[in-house]
This record gives sequence, C-alpha cells and structure tokens, in this order.
Amino acid sequence: MKLIEYADASPEVRAVYDDIMAKRKTDYINNFWKALANDPATLRRTWESIQQVMAPGELDPLTKELIYLAVSATNGCEYCIASHSAAATNKGMTQAIFGELMAVVGMANETNRLAAGYRVPVDDRFK
Amino acid sequence: MKLIEYADASPEVRAVYDDIMAKRKTDYINNFWKALANDPATLRRTWESIQQVMAPGELDPLTKELIYLAVSATNGCEYCIASHSAAATNKGMTQAIFGELMAVVGMANETNRLAAGYRVPVDDRFK
Amino acid sequence: MKLIEYADASPEVRAVYDDIMAKRKTDYINNFWKALANDPATLRRTWESIQQVMAPGELDPLTKELIYLAVSATNGCEYCIASHSAAATNKGMTQAIFGELMAVVGMANETNRLAAGYRVPVDDRFK
Amino acid sequence: MKLIEYADASPEVRAVYDDIMAKRKTDYINNFWKALANDPATLRRTWESIQQVMAPGELDPLTKELIYLAVSATNGCEYCIASHSAAATNKGMTQAIFGELMAVVGMANETNRLAAGYRVPVDDRFK
Amino acid sequence: MKLIEYADASPEVRAVYDDIMAKRKTDYINNFWKALANDPATLRRTWESIQQVMAPGELDPLTKELIYLAVSATNGCEYCIASHSAAATNKGMTQAIFGELMAVVGMANETNRLAAGYRVPVDDRFK
Amino acid sequence: MKLIEYADASPEVRAVYDDIMAKRKTDYINNFWKALANDPATLRRTWESIQQVMAPGELDPLTKELIYLAVSATNGCEYCIASHSAAATNKGMTQAIFGELMAVVGMANETNRLAAGYRVPVDDRFK
Repeated sequence: MKLIEYADASPEVRAVYDDIMAKRKTDYINNFWKALANDPATLRRTWESIQQVMAPGELDPLTKELIYLAVSATNGCEYCIASHSAAATNKGMTQAIFGELMAVVGMANETNRLAAGYRVPVDDRFK
Repeated sequence: MKLIEYADASPEVRAVYDDIMAKRKTDYINNFWKALANDPATLRRTWESIQQVMAPGELDPLTKELIYLAVSATNGCEYCIASHSAAATNKGMTQAIFGELMAVVGMANETNRLAAGYRVPVDDRFK
Repeated sequence: MKLIEYADASPEVRAVYDDIMAKRKTDYINNFWKALANDPATLRRTWESIQQVMAPGELDPLTKELIYLAVSATNGCEYCIASHSAAATNKGMTQAIFGELMAVVGMANETNRLAAGYRVPVDDRFK
Repeated sequence: MKLIEYADASPEVRAVYDDIMAKRKTDYINNFWKALANDPATLRRTWESIQQVMAPGELDPLTKELIYLAVSATNGCEYCIASHSAAATNKGMTQAIFGELMAVVGMANETNRLAAGYRVPVDDRFK
Repeated sequence: MKLIEYADASPEVRAVYDDIMAKRKTDYINNFWKALANDPATLRRTWESIQQVMAPGELDPLTKELIYLAVSATNGCEYCIASHSAAATNKGMTQAIFGELMAVVGMANETNRLAAGYRVPVDDRFK
Repeated sequence: MKLIEYADASPEVRAVYDDIMAKRKTDYINNFWKALANDPATLRRTWESIQQVMAPGELDPLTKELIYLAVSATNGCEYCIASHSAAATNKGMTQAIFGELMAVVGMANETNRLAAGYRVPVDDRFK
C-alpha cells in the first residue's frame, strides 16, 4: 500500500489534505490519510465523518479521544493507539488520566468475559 | 449456572453482598454478582477491583462509565451494555450523551479496521 | 436457517449423523450439526476436524474442552459457551474448575488490553 | 517458533510442501506453512481444508479471497492481511476493488457496534 | 432504548425515513434505523454513508452484502447477521452461496489465530 | 510510554518489583511491569490479582498458562503471546503441547463463527 504524498496527489485528494491542514492548523498529514488517499471517496467520507463525530458537543474533545483510545486498545489496533494517544495528549490527557483510562478498559474487558462465560441473564430492571 | 440468592449464600458471599448494598445504598444485587458468587474468590476480587478502578480520580464517575460502555459495545457484551447503560444513566448520561458516545465508538471501530487493512505504518512522531 | 432433522436428511448428511451418534454413544444430535447440515461439505469437514483436534494426545480431553471454552467466552459466542460448558462438565469439569478457568480468561482479557494500550515492546528474551 | 525449511523437513512435512508447490505452480512456501510444519498434523489438516474451502464453487476464487481479507482486517491479523492481499492481487484484485472492500469492512464494523450498543431487537421478519 | 416510529418522529427523522422508503421501494423501516433515530445526526450520517459504500461499483451489491455478512459473523453481531442475511438473500444469495461464505469465514478465523499464535513473520515478498 | 527501570522507580514501585523478583526467583522484570509502573495503583493491583488467579488450585500452573495463551492468541496480542509462550515453556509446555493447544484454539475460533453465522439456537438441554 503506497502512501500518497501531497506532491503526487490528485486535485481531489489535495482538496482534502488542504482542508485537514487548515482545520488542524498544521502542515503535517498523518499516514492514515495518506493511505486512505488510495481511495479518494473513502478519504473524503472518513474525513467528513470524523469532523462531525469528534466535534465538541455534549462530550468535550478530550473525552471523545479517550473513548476512541478505549476502543482502539480493546481492538489491539497499534496504529490507532499510537495516533490517538498523541491526539489525546494534545488535548490534555496526562499520564494519570491515561492510567485511569487503561484501568477501566482492562477491567471492562475482564468483566465482559466473566458475564459471557457465566451466561449471566440480563436483570429485568436493565431491560 | 445458578444465581446465588442472599438466603442461600455462604457467610463469605454474604459479606460481599452486604458491602455492595452498603456502598451502593441499595438492597438490590445485580445478577452479575449473583453469578460470580459461584466462585467466592472471584466475587471478592472483582468487587474490590471495580471499586478501585471506578472510584473518582482524574476522571469523574460518569466518564468512567462511558468508557466501560464503549468497551462493552465494542465487544458486543449484551449483559454489560445493559447494566452499564443503566449505571451511566444513574450518573447523568442523557440520550444526547449516549448518542455522541456511540457515534465515537462506531467511528473508532470503523477506522481501526481501515488502519489495519491498509497496513498503515505508524508515523515516526507517534512512536 | 433450518435445522435438518434426521428424517429429512440426505444420505450424505445421515452418514455423518450416524457417525456422530456412534462415536459419542448417544442418539442426540446437537443443533450445531443440524444447522451445518445445510452445507454437507462443511458438516463433514468440521466433524472430521473436530475429532482429530479434540482426540486425546499430549493434552487430555478435559483440558481441550477448557481451552475451547476459554476461546468461546473470549469471543462471546453464546451457543459455544453453552454447548462446551455441557461437554466440559461431562468430561469432569466441576464448579471449582469452571471458576478458576473463568478467572484466568478474565485476567488474560484484561492484561491483553493493558499490554496493547501501553504499547509494551516485546522483551528481547521473549523473541 | 522455528520456520521449518524444506531441507530440514520430515518426509511427512515434505509431502505437504511438495503438494503446495505442485498445486500452486510455485517453488515458494509461505512462512505460514513453515511455521505450521512444527505440528505436521495441523499442517496437513489446514492445507487440505484450505483447498476444499477456497476451491471455485458458487463463489469465484477472487470473491473468496476478498472475504478472507475482510475477516483478517476485522481481526487485525497483520500476517493474514499481508498474505491474502497478495493472493487477492494475484487473482485480480485491483486498487479500486480493494478500496471498495475496505469501505464495506469499515462500515460493517461501525454498524455492528451501533446495533450492539443501541441493543436493537431483531425485526420479526428477519427471524 | 426506544424505537422511534414514523408517527412519533421529528421532521428531520421523517425526512430520512422517507428517503429510505423511497430508495428501497418499501414501506418498511428496519429497527436499526428506528433505534438510530434517537440520534438524528447519526441516523442521517449512517444512512448517507451506507448508500455510498453499498452502491454498485467495482463490486456488485451481492458481493458487498456477503462481505458485510462475513464481518458481522466474525464480530458475532446477532442483529447484523439477521438483517444482512435477509438483504443478501434479496440480492441473490442462495443456500449454497451462504454455505461457501461461512466456510471461508470460519477458515479465516481459524488461520488468523494460527498465524498469531505461531507468531509467523510476514514474508518479505508480502511487505 | 516510558519503561520504568528499578533505578528510576519510586519506593511504591520498587516494593512491587522486589516482590516480583522474590516470588519468581529472578532478577529480571518484564517490560509489561515496567510499563504498568507508570500507574503504580494498576501495577500493584494487577500483580496481586495475577498471583491469586495463576496460583495452583484445581488447575495446575501449566494448564492456566495454556488458557492464558489461548485467550492471547484469540485476541492477537503479540506481547502476551510472546511472554506467555515463554512462561508456559518454563512450566513444561513442549512443542507437541503447543501444537495441540493452537489446533484447539484455531478450531474454536472457526466454529464460534459458524455457530454465530448460522444463528444456531441453543439446545434446550444446554440451557
């Protein structure tokens, strides 16, 4: 899989790259986007969706990054753990917050399997 | 797998049940604990760990429940989704917060697979 | 998905059913096999592979069932947890063994995510 | 884990290697088979099953490789993504096909979690 | 989680429902959409993305549904397996095609774990 | 993520390191513990839980390591596969045992997806 650099990109891909750099106030494009650029439709759709989903709302941007990181650690996605750890740190994640996050992620993965293995029926009050 | 009711529980199990009810200010014991009671050592260890991990710290209790829920949805654990949705609601999760949470969870699960399938190399700056 | 009963089965499917009943000394065919019977090639291949893989060898049949159950709980496969819990019980799994099994499964699922999230590099001595 | 080279292989393993090379019209044996060769029974059984499952039938060989790749990306199996990307390319997968495949894989992983998290009940008509 | 019926839906939600019914030439709205309607932004974004991703392109609609089903079976998502089995059947999936699909899905899940457990290094030619 | 060496560790972390080295009769601390040391509370809790869960009981220590390895291979956790392969080997896992273990793990992952995809209903006798 080739990473598409700006110099080699089609106008369609460059438009997304330009938007990423403008919105993020950076001149750096992550490898994730350079890989998706092999499929410009997915590049554009993913970039648009990410902006909608990660925008501040009821949840602040740091909390959203922590949730992203929790999912990525659960799935064991090395790239995503690395890039969203960096993003979360930029948004204020300290070492102590990371520690608490991972403790919850570990615990949830443990009890998820205890609940499955013991075949615990859902309590009526939770239905 | 039998659910162990208070009346049928050993003193060791009753001690944990009593502690759960006292700390949570309720007279209700979830099926999860009644199932774990089949193995009193796991019941006690899990209850003690959960208290440590879910205690307020750098992250507030609601944020910790949201992370728990994000992991449970990623793993497709029906019991855990149901019980932690209830717990999160008790701690202030609104319909709008749940919607944003699930949007991030869905997006992270999508991009985790895009990163894996495209075999995106980790950027040097994220290492 | 229709479950194929013996009376409605083709000769090819009946031959597998007969072999299952003879080898397992039972007149009962699990729903799993009745579902696979919709694809006789998969039915036959799976039955033959299961016999090879689950046969006593360096590991005894109970240990193999425990491993099967550990994987099934990790994947949250309700059918497989139910059927392999029954199979393991038939081969000697007690309540105490089940408790220890699930404790290890839970713990492994927890530390798997801690290792991923903390991005722990593999020690040279483990390579 | 040692990779077993042809020169060091037992007659039983060599027979499988010979069959792989003959059927695939190549003199190259993938690392996957060289690793499985540490357990000759699993090597043989896996090679035989793969041939049955991947043979042209109702689905053509390219479609089967795409499905293999979809599963491998979902599981985040780096080796499998790399080897089945190569196999699919050999069977006609273009960059455009790969892009569409990954878009579906990403989307399915997203909606799988939305369905789980929202606890959507199965419609009667889908039962 | 409440399912939002058309009669109770906001104009924003009704607009999506109307579009689903018009495009799919049906008067039936799946429970999946009725659940997502609790978060209109996610409802709209998901519906728009699904249309882009599942549209005929290099891959035909049936092949895309098979890939969706492969991912859903790998993740054990009951709702998604049920709904996409129905969708695939509508697009031409026969019992025989389903059997071949599931055989590949099962095999890929097996060899994914063999590759991981044996820690098979990626062949240079696959890099 | 920094690995915390003994020389740089706080007294709280050193106490755990000392205990690990004493109990395991070694002067080597795995990278896993050096990473968790960034969060001393998780380091201590995880070390205490591991000792309880992995202690000999109804199941012997080798069997518990095999179960740990089965889960780690299912989750594709590279670090955990490497470290628990080493631990299992120390406790008596031979090449032949590893082969049988992985055969069961592979098979279980295959049939877990067949059961899910075919939507096999749980037999009454397994409930």
